[in-house]
Amino acid sequence: MKNLLETIHNRLNLNQNNLLTIDLFDEFLKENGIAISDTRIKPLRTYIKNATEFISLQPKMDALYTGTNEQFVQRLLEKQLIIPEFSFFRDHITEISKEVQSNCNGKVADYIPELKNIDPNQFAVSICTVDGQVFNFGDHETDFCLQSTAKPINYAIALESQGETYVHKHIGREPSGKRFNEVTLNDQGLPHNPLINAGGMMCCALIEPESSSSLRLDTITKVWQQLTRRKPLVYDSAVYKSEKLTAHRNYALAHLMKEVEAFPTDTDLEETVDLYIKTCSLKVNTANLASAAAVIANGGICPFTHKHIFSNTTIKDCLTMMSFCGMYDFSGEFAFKVGIPAKSGVSGAVMLIIPNLMGITIWSPNLDSFGNSVRGVEFAHKLTERFNFHNFDSLIGNCPKINPRIRKKVSKVKETID
Amino acid sequence: MKNLLETIHNRLNLNQNNLLTIDLFDEFLKENGIAISDTRIKPLRTYIKNATEFISLQPKMDALYTGTNEQFVQRLLEKQLIIPEFSFFRDHITEISKEVQSNCNGKVADYIPELKNIDPNQFAVSICTVDGQVFNFGDHETDFCLQSTAKPINYAIALESQGETYVHKHIGREPSGKRFNEVTLNDQGLPHNPLINAGGMMCCALIEPESSSSLRLDTITKVWQQLTRRKPLVYDSAVYKSEKLTAHRNYALAHLMKEVEAFPTDTDLEETVDLYIKTCSLKVNTANLASAAAVIANGGICPFTHKHIFSNTTIKDCLTMMSFCGMYDFSGEFAFKVGIPAKSGVSGAVMLIIPNLMGITIWSPNLDSFGNSVRGVEFAHKLTERFNFHNFDSLIGNCPKINPRIRKKVSKVKETID
Amino acid sequence: MKNLLETIHNRLNLNQNNLLTIDLFDEFLKENGIAISDTRIKPLRTYIKNATEFISLQPKMDALYTGTNEQFVQRLLEKQLIIPEFSFFRDHITEISKEVQSNCNGKVADYIPELKNIDPNQFAVSICTVDGQVFNFGDHETDFCLQSTAKPINYAIALESQGETYVHKHIGREPSGKRFNEVTLNDQGLPHNPLINAGGMMCCALIEPESSSSLRLDTITKVWQQLTRRKPLVYDSAVYKSEKLTAHRNYALAHLMKEVEAFPTDTDLEETVDLYIKTCSLKVNTANLASAAAVIANGGICPFTHKHIFSNTTIKDCLTMMSFCGMYDFSGEFAFKVGIPAKSGVSGAVMLIIPNLMGITIWSPNLDSFGNSVRGVEFAHKLTERFNFHNFDSLIGNCPKINPRIRKKVSKVKETID
Amino acid sequence: MKNLLETIHNRLNLNQNNLLTIDLFDEFLKENGIAISDTRIKPLRTYIKNATEFISLQPKMDALYTGTNEQFVQRLLEKQLIIPEFSFFRDHITEISKEVQSNCNGKVADYIPELKNIDPNQFAVSICTVDGQVFNFGDHETDFCLQSTAKPINYAIALESQGETYVHKHIGREPSGKRFNEVTLNDQGLPHNPLINAGGMMCCALIEPESSSSLRLDTITKVWQQLTRRKPLVYDSAVYKSEKLTAHRNYALAHLMKEVEAFPTDTDLEETVDLYIKTCSLKVNTANLASAAAVIANGGICPFTHKHIFSNTTIKDCLTMMSFCGMYDFSGEFAFKVGIPAKSGVSGAVMLIIPNLMGITIWSPNLDSFGNSVRGVEFAHKLTERFNFHNFDSLIGNCPKINPRIRKKVSKVKETID
Repeated sequence: MKNLLETIHNRLNLNQNNLLTIDLFDEFLKENGIAISDTRIKPLRTYIKNATEFISLQPKMDALYTGTNEQFVQRLLEKQLIIPEFSFFRDHITEISKEVQSNCNGKVADYIPELKNIDPNQFAVSICTVDGQVFNFGDHETDFCLQSTAKPINYAIALESQGETYVHKHIGREPSGKRFNEVTLNDQGLPHNPLINAGGMMCCALIEPESSSSLRLDTITKVWQQLTRRKPLVYDSAVYKSEKLTAHRNYALAHLMKEVEAFPTDTDLEETVDLYIKTCSLKVNTANLASAAAVIANGGICPFTHKHIFSNTTIKDCLTMMSFCGMYDFSGEFAFKVGIPAKSGVSGAVMLIIPNLMGITIWSPNLDSFGNSVRGVEFAHKLTERFNFHNFDSLIGNCPKINPRIRKKVSKVKETID
Repeated sequence: MKNLLETIHNRLNLNQNNLLTIDLFDEFLKENGIAISDTRIKPLRTYIKNATEFISLQPKMDALYTGTNEQFVQRLLEKQLIIPEFSFFRDHITEISKEVQSNCNGKVADYIPELKNIDPNQFAVSICTVDGQVFNFGDHETDFCLQSTAKPINYAIALESQGETYVHKHIGREPSGKRFNEVTLNDQGLPHNPLINAGGMMCCALIEPESSSSLRLDTITKVWQQLTRRKPLVYDSAVYKSEKLTAHRNYALAHLMKEVEAFPTDTDLEETVDLYIKTCSLKVNTANLASAAAVIANGGICPFTHKHIFSNTTIKDCLTMMSFCGMYDFSGEFAFKVGIPAKSGVSGAVMLIIPNLMGITIWSPNLDSFGNSVRGVEFAHKLTERFNFHNFDSLIGNCPKINPRIRKKVSKVKETID
Repeated sequence: MKNLLETIHNRLNLNQNNLLTIDLFDEFLKENGIAISDTRIKPLRTYIKNATEFISLQPKMDALYTGTNEQFVQRLLEKQLIIPEFSFFRDHITEISKEVQSNCNGKVADYIPELKNIDPNQFAVSICTVDGQVFNFGDHETDFCLQSTAKPINYAIALESQGETYVHKHIGREPSGKRFNEVTLNDQGLPHNPLINAGGMMCCALIEPESSSSLRLDTITKVWQQLTRRKPLVYDSAVYKSEKLTAHRNYALAHLMKEVEAFPTDTDLEETVDLYIKTCSLKVNTANLASAAAVIANGGICPFTHKHIFSNTTIKDCLTMMSFCGMYDFSGEFAFKVGIPAKSGVSGAVMLIIPNLMGITIWSPNLDSFGNSVRGVEFAHKLTERFNFHNFDSLIGNCPKINPRIRKKVSKVKETID
Repeated sequence: MKNLLETIHNRLNLNQNNLLTIDLFDEFLKENGIAISDTRIKPLRTYIKNATEFISLQPKMDALYTGTNEQFVQRLLEKQLIIPEFSFFRDHITEISKEVQSNCNGKVADYIPELKNIDPNQFAVSICTVDGQVFNFGDHETDFCLQSTAKPINYAIALESQGETYVHKHIGREPSGKRFNEVTLNDQGLPHNPLINAGGMMCCALIEPESSSSLRLDTITKVWQQLTRRKPLVYDSAVYKSEKLTAHRNYALAHLMKEVEAFPTDTDLEETVDLYIKTCSLKVNTANLASAAAVIANGGICPFTHKHIFSNTTIKDCLTMMSFCGMYDFSGEFAFKVGIPAKSGVSGAVMLIIPNLMGITIWSPNLDSFGNSVRGVEFAHKLTERFNFHNFDSLIGNCPKINPRIRKKVSKVKETID
């Protein structure tokens, strides 16, 4: 740890007494997008804070900061986090967010009565990189329901527990090319893909089918707690009840799937629809959802805890589906112009995944005619116009967009992605 | 150039006299996938060859190798090419190629009489990386017609000359979800996308519409010459004639587009169909087509000449279309399981693009029921099972597949993509 | 009535004593297809029967046969019933029935468990003309459930009570062109027509919506009692229960219609589906159903009681729908080759209407791949090959088929249709 | 003939001298809808005319009127023609015609340049009964092109020469359910039916395929001459040329049919399209077309010459198709509300067939959005509201509409249809 302290001393700004104050350290963290509550630096920060307003960097103090993620701190100090110039990046995102905020088009989803009463002006943007660098804008502490943004995670849970082959014996994997309100299955009598309602219900049917109803919800909730590091994470019972009463389309699809024997035998229709609606009603804020999105961007590994939540295969399948079918009937156009795997929900949430880089969540209740958040879609367009985040932007020369993965003004340094 | 010579001396195997022979140099080139005819090392190689069987590395000889791409040679010597362990990679590809070669399923396309008589056992694989590292297997010097593999390039040429907005006023950009033999346009009365026949003809209609028929073909041929560095590059007149006589589906589509006024005003139907069929009949071998594919993988820049042939925007649009619609009705499944932008043609060619990494071309005339080369599809599957080439494979940990972008056994070294 | 008795004396066969016995009278009735229980001749027959084995035709007995439909008897005696040569016609129908009976193809519907256990060899044919001439063959006293043959009547009841305009604000009136198991509505979000399941449920929703569930069923049952003159007429509770448990497709459709607001406001989904399934489970035999069919053939008027049950408009709409959509996906082909308005049900019943002439019912449980009774369809084909019953067979010369509306061998006599 | 003359004397109005003048006779003819040029009464009329202004009905003059259709004259005199009260009927039709004439909605077809310049106010109605009673209103002597009204006749000619089985190996027989501008074939790769463009071309391909191009047109023209008794009957070369230049949709369909091998082998695509367009360009007036329609109404027999032009089977198939598919995408609604087999053409012609009764032709160039003549469709609606002409109107009581088949004020008389 001696080296680490030396590096801190060498790299960070010090006060006139050549000492590191907690204020200077916190400023450094902020500059790099690291939350002061980040567990990876917590013992170190406590040490610095408690060093009676300054530190003199005595090696004998080593014992105090056991628990710090040394490797992470080293990379942080060496400006080797995935977004090396985080404040520069943050300024761009803030600018885009403000531009998007002025767009008041669209209207709040009205098909679920309980969603109608929401304040349409609310707006939040949250970012979390694969190195746990975070940024929040606007109402990022306000809760909303996941709605369809629950689908990729339900799909991932089903994949992890049942395997790709079994899951896709019950769900297709192609865009449907069907209008929103058409109630059909594909040529094999299966939901077209896991990200439309029929597929979402099927995923629920595949999660611990032998367990009791409450245990199954528990399993799903626990994954969300790992993804968001939020506890407790619960569903909104008013929205759940409201949605259940008006869930005619979902019941239509579920009965249709029963009819054509798309479900595994013994699937309880009522219980499946119920579980599905409960997962749609789970409450999160954009910071939580960005955190979950970062896990997907990071190949299934939590950036903060380094826990393996999903395998590479699961993430690969999940991102493929999101890139094809995540934005309802706008998915094709979104894939062309924006080129970022995404999933939106009628609560106004949009989750964007820049693989190997970051997760982004936008939340704003006003929806366009496709059912996607107006501001969410505009944000995504502006993002991809400015940064080389399109799935097929060239990463090796010839792309005029900003590449935030490399250090500014230090053009000779190799861009790295690990 | 002194440094370069020193590096050569330090890095390469020398003979017992501590000297570098041309044999040793050529072996080194081969090991790294660099052709001995590669212009980037030609003067250097000539110098080494002519140094009466050996070189003693005299600085005064510098003048002799003017024209060598010094930066490239430096990276080559430092094992920093995009596939640092090329012979290891080549062994894997050879293994896959041999496995695939034993698959004799499928049958040769019979709808164009002239294609029927081809020997179905022919098989070739060619690879070209963004650093110009090449690999060839089988009948890579045998010519075949581009057929639908011409479409992405026709699309790219149209984009470059007319701009994305104008091109997509005349062509849609979503998968069609329609069976092969259905003759329809999308809801706006346009071809669904540039990679199906209707869209392919529309691209031809958008290329230099004001020019004469022969000049337009000339323009297209010249782009192919740049992409493949093959001269002359001509169309197969027997196939062209045969195809023209039986092109009822294409005429049906062209008349339909005329009917609904999908074409720009003044488009000559007959001339458009003719130009389209001629581009389908252009003759190349897999080595040529891999070279063209490498340009797309490299963001539009030729790996050998560093000439900018297509812009980032063009490449982005082209890859998006290839990832959605390149493999006929198998495109959705291919995107899910293989996850590599691709285009196949009924001649049996399949072009795969691993963005930022390499282009791959497989050619084998036997087709499956979708019209894709049986061996081409199997090759792609095996490739993506072994290497992390799926569009959504994680590049940062958690992926159990081989990542040929990093040096073997030198795990501490950072993986780089530039 | 004097004339009538004289006519009887002149027209009928008498015994050697020049007297009319009841046996001779019954033989005459049978020859003309008139049941001995027919109320229109009942008092007359009782008189003849009670005349101590013979009648001497005393005018003073007149009072005894009050209640006889004199006009009908007159036409009967003058060979002016709609099928003047009924025994000739009956022989043909018997021949066809026997031919058809030998066809053992198809299989019993298995999607409703309770229907599976039926004896597939059962077979019945019943005919009832617009003049109440009847013919029965086979198991015509065995009950079966109406299933979809209930639909034209539910439609007619809805039309009578709500009017064509209102009914068709909630139901379309075109063939669907959709496969059996596709769950869709038309472009206006309505059932395609009243004869498919969605339309059948909608008709139920439109019948006395303000009444209680049991009163609504009562209303429908009463119409069936009038049509069939069978009392009581009840539903099969075992089939009803079995069908309700497996009615996923119907629930899917009902929820879908709720979702798109196809139903009138306040429609109770559960009650509607329930009423629909109960009407499908009503039990009749072929003689009953032929009687109902004869009412439709007779412009809505009961041939026996002359009661106006449905208006001309209702009958016109009903027959139009039957001619377009009555035989599931086989409707188009049936309309072309057979050309008779019809409706089949999965219980194996087929109801045929020859407008202005007769109703015919065939029942045989084995179904073809379209869900139509195999023998029912074959019967219809053979019928239309032999008689000029196709909707567009010429009635004025040039048609080589038998026209049973005219007297045999009495070619000079004008053919009449009243 | 003695009887006939006596009947004339007894039935017709005579002048004050108790004699029959030619004026009185002509008035009688007109009252019954019989043209003074009708060949069936020509010799008789000539006799009456030449009898120095009057006739005294001398039996010895018999020889003079040889050639008169005596049976027809008998029925005419006995008020037994199919419309016994023709002037009453004519008054109704005149009233409807005048109402319809005030409707100036719609617009002239513009897709064939030559059709654009027509005067949209033109309007004609012609009727011809199965007894050759005729009525004309408006511009009934103005020629127009058959366009799609040629299709039922082309279909009939193909049926007569090749047989139903062969014809329907190449053409389907169900409504397409497809929008006008969709270019598709049915599931078997055949035109959906003979009354859409693809089917129309196929019918042409099936008519004397082995003959020369001009002989084939000759064959078709000769049938039209028999149907209309008009000679010569020729095509409009300006319309033909104009249509040929813009026939992209037809070429698209023809190439598509070539592609899927829907045509009989050896079918010459260019010649087929050419023949098809020529038949569309044949010139007639409404009186001609009503005459042709009357042949179809009369089971294929010409009312005037009693020549058998088409068989009952051909007429049955033809009427079935017309009742399902004759009015483009409005066919379903037309079948429901109007219920009369019909065919319209973009020239503004509508041909209606009341089987066993009459043919009616309306011509007015303004079209609605379906491509049907606005006035033609309105006329059909008004006609069916007033008369019991709907295919499924009850003919035996219970229908409140006018039945022109029966004698007015003579309600006791049986309604007859022969």
